[in-house]
Amino acid sequence: MPAAPVAELGRRAVAASRQLAQATTGAKDAALHAAAELLARRSDEVLAANAEDVSAAESSGAAATVVDRLRLSPARIESMCEGLRKVAALADPVGEVVDGWVRPNGLRISRVRVPLGVVGIIYENRPNVTSDAAGLCLKAGNAAMLRGSSSALNSNVAVAACLREGAAKAGLPEDCVVLVEDTSRSSAVEFMQLRGVIDCLVPRGGPSLIASVLENATVPYVIDGDGNCHVYVDASADLDMAISIVANAKTQRPSVCNAAESLLVHRDVAERFLPRVVDALAGVELVGDEASRRIVGSIGPASDDDFGREFLDLKMSVAVVDDLDAAIDHIRRYGSGHTEAIVTSDLRSAERFAHEVDAAAVMINASTRFTDGEEFGFGAEIGISTQKLHARGPMGLRELTTVKYVVHGEGQIRS
Amino acid sequence: MPAAPVAELGRRAVAASRQLAQATTGAKDAALHAAAELLARRSDEVLAANAEDVSAAESSGAAATVVDRLRLSPARIESMCEGLRKVAALADPVGEVVDGWVRPNGLRISRVRVPLGVVGIIYENRPNVTSDAAGLCLKAGNAAMLRGSSSALNSNVAVAACLREGAAKAGLPEDCVVLVEDTSRSSAVEFMQLRGVIDCLVPRGGPSLIASVLENATVPYVIDGDGNCHVYVDASADLDMAISIVANAKTQRPSVCNAAESLLVHRDVAERFLPRVVDALAGVELVGDEASRRIVGSIGPASDDDFGREFLDLKMSVAVVDDLDAAIDHIRRYGSGHTEAIVTSDLRSAERFAHEVDAAAVMINASTRFTDGEEFGFGAEIGISTQKLHARGPMGLRELTTVKYVVHGEGQIRS
Repeated sequence: MPAAPVAELGRRAVAASRQLAQATTGAKDAALHAAAELLARRSDEVLAANAEDVSAAESSGAAATVVDRLRLSPARIESMCEGLRKVAALADPVGEVVDGWVRPNGLRISRVRVPLGVVGIIYENRPNVTSDAAGLCLKAGNAAMLRGSSSALNSNVAVAACLREGAAKAGLPEDCVVLVEDTSRSSAVEFMQLRGVIDCLVPRGGPSLIASVLENATVPYVIDGDGNCHVYVDASADLDMAISIVANAKTQRPSVCNAAESLLVHRDVAERFLPRVVDALAGVELVGDEASRRIVGSIGPASDDDFGREFLDLKMSVAVVDDLDAAIDHIRRYGSGHTEAIVTSDLRSAERFAHEVDAAAVMINASTRFTDGEEFGFGAEIGISTQKLHARGPMGLRELTTVKYVVHGEGQIRS
Repeated sequence: MPAAPVAELGRRAVAASRQLAQATTGAKDAALHAAAELLARRSDEVLAANAEDVSAAESSGAAATVVDRLRLSPARIESMCEGLRKVAALADPVGEVVDGWVRPNGLRISRVRVPLGVVGIIYENRPNVTSDAAGLCLKAGNAAMLRGSSSALNSNVAVAACLREGAAKAGLPEDCVVLVEDTSRSSAVEFMQLRGVIDCLVPRGGPSLIASVLENATVPYVIDGDGNCHVYVDASADLDMAISIVANAKTQRPSVCNAAESLLVHRDVAERFLPRVVDALAGVELVGDEASRRIVGSIGPASDDDFGREFLDLKMSVAVVDDLDAAIDHIRRYGSGHTEAIVTSDLRSAERFAHEVDAAAVMINASTRFTDGEEFGFGAEIGISTQKLHARGPMGLRELTTVKYVVHGEGQIRS
């Protein structure tokens, strides 16, 4: 079957979304389970398709990290299946009455949670996004319109087929999940401009993808942006707790957006704290301001750029600050609005930090790594929004919905 | 004082927004009252500035409706003052704990309502938007960055000065309200691309402004779009109620987005209903499909374009539909997702219509005219969103805020 044009896929997704919006939770869950079963049963075919993608990437000289993201394994496929089953087990957000009230003229107003419609996902070379994103979209009653990278096309086609057939087995339209197989640059731009088709676009990828969305998209979108996360160690901090939190935030998984990239230390505890934390961060390249380097000689010099950088690696910037205000100012200047943490025993410092730092999540005496849909209890996430509209922080099923006002009257007219 | 460049105004708005986010409700309300007082006291100066704008518009041959929107009067100024006082009387949305829960690891998560930061308003020639929008932004803790049209510049400068001085009188930064005085086309584009400055852009204007936002904006925005609203008269409708609702929805204020533009009538009641509603709509130009024209000869022929058109005038399209499904299909094809109404006595029809019609608001036995911030009980509105992200339907103070996750721990790290 030849790949359908983007506009045609969009029309099919819109038609499917209308049926899906009316689907019962039972049908949606059955579709997710059927898709998981198909994916497990066809593991070998999916792996064979993936092997084509991987060998093409390798022979084109792709970086090892790129190939690693692309590569599926039996374990990764099983985890994709498990992901679909977990989403099936989550509560259905659709139909929730968010609130409601009665007006003096007797109109009864309720605000009801409904699917967005068609959710567009544009992503890079991880084929697991195909099932993870489509599963979440489907559970929230949305058709998923997927546009992955050309390097993962064979894998994505194989995975998407399982989701489409799973939907059909549950009596839902196959076009609940459509995959754009035209991976040209012009199709990406066309995708981002499907106004009237895509109700919400979620880009999943690096800075160049985000930049392209900002430049080209005319559909509404939610940006899953950088995480230049700080841990601020206050003068009153329990230093053992601070070491544990800094080490966890930096090293537990350095490649993700909620890892800490920068350490701020109150000057009153810098002499005692910095040498200890440097030991705890063995293996992490540290670059710091002059004050920190006077205390620990092994800290390299930090440029202004280093403080604004999301390293996503075993590297961290360090600065000694005069007080809480200086810490908050530093975060305002360099932070990306993702997650900021304070370690403190002082109530006023905790409250001021929580109140004055402008970020999706503020952690008081906890690791930045907790900003995550699973850790927040959402069961799964489609991304972490660093913008302020629609969704902020981890985006779960609820963030894949919108609301509708339903107003009941008995003939009221406006005077 | 020469007009500051857009980027410089943006920096000042950001700095002011940080102070404003921490302001007490008392200070914000005092600023609104002080602004109202200044505006009332300077009524003559504001009217003089407005007279310059009006005479320039008239001598440039602007349409009468444009001049009317531009023109202020003592009564209009008093209503702007009253608007500011009303916003001061509304509850402050900032600080509301939206929800909160405890995770198995003891982390206490709360979701707290916070200001957006800087709200950009780009608008056409109504000078009252200057105070209405700035007042709402200020109450919700946001700096307002305003960019009106060149035709209203003198009026806008005079009105914005009252708001700025009102803020200063209450100890808040004047730059809580900044007005872009450079009204060139290039400054509009620059305004829409102030990423990192404008957290939410709300365009208030016609189709060409909306198109420009879609084409140029890189900041997050909420579209206040068209309202091609339908009233569907079901077979089971109380026809007296239906006539009252249709007449109200079409004629009570035809120039606004929640006025009805199209009437759908179930074929079983068309013969009885159409002649009566045509009488009730005396003075309204009706264009309809063949079936409606067979019943009432005075209905003119409707083109496909007519059914998709927001007339904003005493004109209405009419179609006879076979059943509820046909009505829902018609609305899917032509509706703009604003407000759709059904008049019915049948529970199943009411429920299906509410469930299956995809619009910001669905009215059951009530006029479309009720989709409005005041009528919904929000006290005031900054616009009516026809998109599905962030806000849908009337946008009040709540829609001018975002949330922040505040997480309290006792040293939790992720394993």
